[in-house]
Amino acid sequence: MEDALIDKLTRSLPEGYHTIVGIGDDCAVTQSPKKGELLLLKTDCIVEGIHFEKNAPGKWVGWKALCRAISDVAACGGIPTHALITFAAPSDVSQRRLQSVYLGIERAARQFDIGIIGGESSRSPSSFFLSVTLTGSVLRRHLILRSGAHPGDSLFVTGRLGGSLRRQHHLKFTPRLMEARWLATHIPIHAMMDLSDGLGSDLPRMAKASRTGFEIQPTLLPRTPGCSVEQAISDGEDYELLFAIPPKKEAFLIQQWPFPRLKLTKIGYMTAHPKRSTPLARGYDHFK
Amino acid sequence: MEDALIDKLTRSLPEGYHTIVGIGDDCAVTQSPKKGELLLLKTDCIVEGIHFEKNAPGKWVGWKALCRAISDVAACGGIPTHALITFAAPSDVSQRRLQSVYLGIERAARQFDIGIIGGESSRSPSSFFLSVTLTGSVLRRHLILRSGAHPGDSLFVTGRLGGSLRRQHHLKFTPRLMEARWLATHIPIHAMMDLSDGLGSDLPRMAKASRTGFEIQPTLLPRTPGCSVEQAISDGEDYELLFAIPPKKEAFLIQQWPFPRLKLTKIGYMTAHPKRSTPLARGYDHFK
Repeated sequence: MEDALIDKLTRSLPEGYHTIVGIGDDCAVTQSPKKGELLLLKTDCIVEGIHFEKNAPGKWVGWKALCRAISDVAACGGIPTHALITFAAPSDVSQRRLQSVYLGIERAARQFDIGIIGGESSRSPSSFFLSVTLTGSVLRRHLILRSGAHPGDSLFVTGRLGGSLRRQHHLKFTPRLMEARWLATHIPIHAMMDLSDGLGSDLPRMAKASRTGFEIQPTLLPRTPGCSVEQAISDGEDYELLFAIPPKKEAFLIQQWPFPRLKLTKIGYMTAHPKRSTPLARGYDHFK
Repeated sequence: MEDALIDKLTRSLPEGYHTIVGIGDDCAVTQSPKKGELLLLKTDCIVEGIHFEKNAPGKWVGWKALCRAISDVAACGGIPTHALITFAAPSDVSQRRLQSVYLGIERAARQFDIGIIGGESSRSPSSFFLSVTLTGSVLRRHLILRSGAHPGDSLFVTGRLGGSLRRQHHLKFTPRLMEARWLATHIPIHAMMDLSDGLGSDLPRMAKASRTGFEIQPTLLPRTPGCSVEQAISDGEDYELLFAIPPKKEAFLIQQWPFPRLKLTKIGYMTAHPKRSTPLARGYDHFK
């Protein structure tokens, strides 16, 4: 539903000049300051009552807002550089809470070496709304899109899936920037994205963008302890990486993977049959 | 209040590398794709019930969202290039209304030759939020900041001030892109900004950023017919240009101004005394 609506809304919009990747991928891509490099642009927002509860600690709200965008830049193989922060806050949000949110933003900015260079603020009649714009850079040869998977590619995910909301992981996750950078520079990744809406929504998006199908064994998915297969597929907000590589690179990837504390699981493969993919429960849908 | 709070929130944030202008001006400025050019970044948001009424036509809502950001890029002397659109909509917002909003965005994008290259959408518990990220480019020698005014500079505004909300001008205004481009390329402008919160808020901001004072004759301000001096100063959402030039360029500006249908008014001058400026009623304050 969301994807179809967005398609409809954005179908006739002008694309502009020097646009390398427009609407539909994790980031938009245009020309960049340095030769051989590209500029990544990502915008994202989180809303009180949808992405975080009213009583969620401010510093985790700020952390999440920036880290969601970092996760998208990472999934494109890029390095985040600058961010702009926009918020709209109801008049009953205290200065103390805003300071706490900015503390979380600052912590993420310092940890991932991002400059905060602008923003905007407004009053809001009820919900607290936080929007992040993030720029990034990526060498042209390291840019990874969700649309590049080939039939036969092996599918991998990092970490474990499911239960993110229940265990507050969605507020405190670490975006897989280091891991994505290693993948972009060491493995000929065909397609990658971050799992924000759940594998059940995100894997079909990758397959659709790549014009492939997919075949996975749901019971073999790496699950958060205590989570069912359904939860691993549909809970969403995992912020793990999903990527497709040529099968002959599998052994090399598994041998060389330099992050012993982060699980790496082959979950299946891409197929040539878009209409005969493994049926999956849909992941989190903002419009459901 | 808003400015002081934002100062407090953002004071300790890291600035990042290659940042030419960070928090506090109309746009952020970093390195750009082309030599001698700079990249402008602007983020802005509008919120139902604050910046537009629930019954405002969708196409004007979309137009306003993009044009507010265009107005900021214009005020820096730049040319807008790419935009990303993020919205959060309550479930009772119809698809028809969203399409109407996107039609307004598209109209503005086509009129000002901007590519829409990405965005994000979310559900919202109540208010409808629309956030725009806009990139722009400007030659280094054409970049104009709000902080460059000198004591003695002559202050000008375009158009007429006041009454924007009453007559729906705030939804339908044309950002002064053409005029700002002409100014940036023909006149040695010291400082410029767009009037979004009202002269009573925005002029003190320019003076503060430039470490100057100002002296104006409020009764001589160009007013929208039917507006009082107070309304011209405080209503806000004029989206006209305010700029400071060396007094010896005044005659040249007035002679050469190529927009006969757009009024150009000298409203006063900058002074060396930050604490002895003309007292003005504050303009629109999002947090009041």
